[in-house]
Amino acid sequence: MPDRSPLAPVRFPALPALAGVRLASGNCGIRYKGRTDLLLVELAPGTTAAGVYTRTSMPSAPVMWCKKINAKGRARAIVVNSGNANAFTGKVGDASVRRTVEGARKLFGCAAHEVYVASTGVIGEPLPDEKITANLAALGARLSARAWPEAAAAIMTTDTFAKAATRTTKIAGTKVTINGIVKGSGMIAPNMGTMLGFVFTDARLPAPVLRALIARACDRSFNATTVDGDTSTSDTVVLCATGQARHRAVTSAANGHLKDFTAALDAVMRDLAQQVVRDGEGARKFIAITVKGAASDASARRVGLAIANSPLVKTAVAGEDANWGRLVMAVGKSGEPARQDKLGIRIGGVQVAKAGVRVPKFDEAPVARHMKGREIDIAIELGLGRGQAVVWTCDLTHGYISINADYRS
Amino acid sequence: MPDRSPLAPVRFPALPALAGVRLASGNCGIRYKGRTDLLLVELAPGTTAAGVYTRTSMPSAPVMWCKKINAKGRARAIVVNSGNANAFTGKVGDASVRRTVEGARKLFGCAAHEVYVASTGVIGEPLPDEKITANLAALGARLSARAWPEAAAAIMTTDTFAKAATRTTKIAGTKVTINGIVKGSGMIAPNMGTMLGFVFTDARLPAPVLRALIARACDRSFNATTVDGDTSTSDTVVLCATGQARHRAVTSAANGHLKDFTAALDAVMRDLAQQVVRDGEGARKFIAITVKGAASDASARRVGLAIANSPLVKTAVAGEDANWGRLVMAVGKSGEPARQDKLGIRIGGVQVAKAGVRVPKFDEAPVARHMKGREIDIAIELGLGRGQAVVWTCDLTHGYISINADYRS
Repeated sequence: MPDRSPLAPVRFPALPALAGVRLASGNCGIRYKGRTDLLLVELAPGTTAAGVYTRTSMPSAPVMWCKKINAKGRARAIVVNSGNANAFTGKVGDASVRRTVEGARKLFGCAAHEVYVASTGVIGEPLPDEKITANLAALGARLSARAWPEAAAAIMTTDTFAKAATRTTKIAGTKVTINGIVKGSGMIAPNMGTMLGFVFTDARLPAPVLRALIARACDRSFNATTVDGDTSTSDTVVLCATGQARHRAVTSAANGHLKDFTAALDAVMRDLAQQVVRDGEGARKFIAITVKGAASDASARRVGLAIANSPLVKTAVAGEDANWGRLVMAVGKSGEPARQDKLGIRIGGVQVAKAGVRVPKFDEAPVARHMKGREIDIAIELGLGRGQAVVWTCDLTHGYISINADYRS
Repeated sequence: MPDRSPLAPVRFPALPALAGVRLASGNCGIRYKGRTDLLLVELAPGTTAAGVYTRTSMPSAPVMWCKKINAKGRARAIVVNSGNANAFTGKVGDASVRRTVEGARKLFGCAAHEVYVASTGVIGEPLPDEKITANLAALGARLSARAWPEAAAAIMTTDTFAKAATRTTKIAGTKVTINGIVKGSGMIAPNMGTMLGFVFTDARLPAPVLRALIARACDRSFNATTVDGDTSTSDTVVLCATGQARHRAVTSAANGHLKDFTAALDAVMRDLAQQVVRDGEGARKFIAITVKGAASDASARRVGLAIANSPLVKTAVAGEDANWGRLVMAVGKSGEPARQDKLGIRIGGVQVAKAGVRVPKFDEAPVARHMKGREIDIAIELGLGRGQAVVWTCDLTHGYISINADYRS
């Protein structure tokens, strides 16, 4: 088990109880010794839900199930295991999902389409689902509104710290809470959500509104992060609204009463996404890449991701080397509109290059100091248009190699 | 300086003299101490040439120059320096190229458009071209038809061994020779050629024929390789034909008399491209990825490159772990047509997965043995169509991190 990431928050945030959500976790022995690997979440009757999922052509069995029930927009239970992804397991994997869903359905007396399942871990091995179903009743007997830290811990794989975020906000004057937990460390280049994220609110919002809100929030959070450019087979982010808050009815994501809520949801999702990057396998430095002056926002995002996924940029940051030539390289290889004679680069706020050349009398000392810090700021000015984006990533270190050269063995 | 790659050939190949080509190298002190960094090649009058270049939007000054003269199709000299890429250097960089070209032009009494230049090394720093021009006359005085090993050594940067390949073949019954040298180790995801490659033949072929031949050969060699997915600002491969061989005139790349020559050129280029991969920064294992059953050859290539560029696949190979789930992941993230229930995987010739699941009673022992070797074979069957491709790459090790976390400093 690698040491706790040096980029981890000082402490796990204090998540308040959230009306309509109870949680329990345990160790059912799927893979890990001496740590929890199973999470059961109970959601109050009437809870609405919307998820976003990996765009891979090789989705896991749980992802296929969640995509199927997503249109119903209802949730009464979530069952998550770590240690085995139940991915590339064919019909056997589908049967494992069905049995797990059936176990939770019976426990809560709900419909099958109200049970979300998620699995994370090794790909390609049959999931011993009997270990899950044998433990559901015990977990059901000790559900608690306070077990957020334990819930966040139970879904970890190579994560070095449990990740959660919370915000309180108002809808039409009524206080509502948003709590989220997430796991993820490697195989992070979400093309939807990261590996597994669960966000809960007591707001009362119909599923179509949730779908619009989560898609937008994902785009500004998880979809703007990368650790290693590898996209998981299991990426799942689900937003559940228990409807226990007694605010005025809201039927559209564009409703003005959702302005603060949307901002708070964005903040929770961004917080969670950045925590995943801060726990990137082997990460020692957190890198924020701002791209401005692009032909479009989408183009700016792609330039940012080309930089964020460049092994040479990431190793230069690991080496505390202000090797800005590698930034030029990454912009150049992105395939996006860019003109050498317009390109400007700032590192740590210091202008390094402008209009296609290194600035005259460039003093590397302040940049070198910035590179020694934990938080690295890179800003690219393309000088072409008004498109902009921010992308978050981490450095590429010996730790990543050590973790991944013998994860499965 | 890292140790010689364990994947390096046992010895440098014996390149025969090639009529019309003479070479000399020296140390002009651009960056490296105690090793050569300048190569001068003299080509006989009448030599035709064609190059392929990086598709980056941030090409180096030498690449821009070569692209400009490429249409003329003539070459009398090539000047190459290592240690400084003369990339992202603006007008200052263009002036450095002009002065270098002028020096070689005067030396050989040729036209400026007959002088190819190439630079490799750090990006963004002005090239001290006076060190090059001051040394051209001395190099001109000791040009030799035998200096192939020295030539290959002078263009190295982080390379751990000098790279060359040779073949003899026939055009219309007349013997012709093809000699090539190449450098490259990191920043290797050629979108044309690798960093720098120079291929020479004594065949007598007009420039349009060379252009067709090199484009095709590049596509089957350099463009099918990757080390780290990062595309250089300096990628250049130039093919020069001195015309000294007295074979029957050939005016089309489709001419039947070129069948053997085309195969030999492909072999030289593939040999050079694979040597670059074998010297991939930190490489300990050579990986060949065969993709069959794809919707098209281009789709197969993209699936192969998605696998070859996956940090998780490359670290698994480094760890000698037959973690085939990561192959599923990489196929899934490629964005190419693929169906889970059709996917098959072989490692070292052993069927691991078939029709979307692990094979029954899978015995990992022979696969584990294969993973301990130096040469790793991965075969993907998509089961959709007739498209196929082979892609070559290397593993991702601690060596890559060590080399790149402090290359510039």
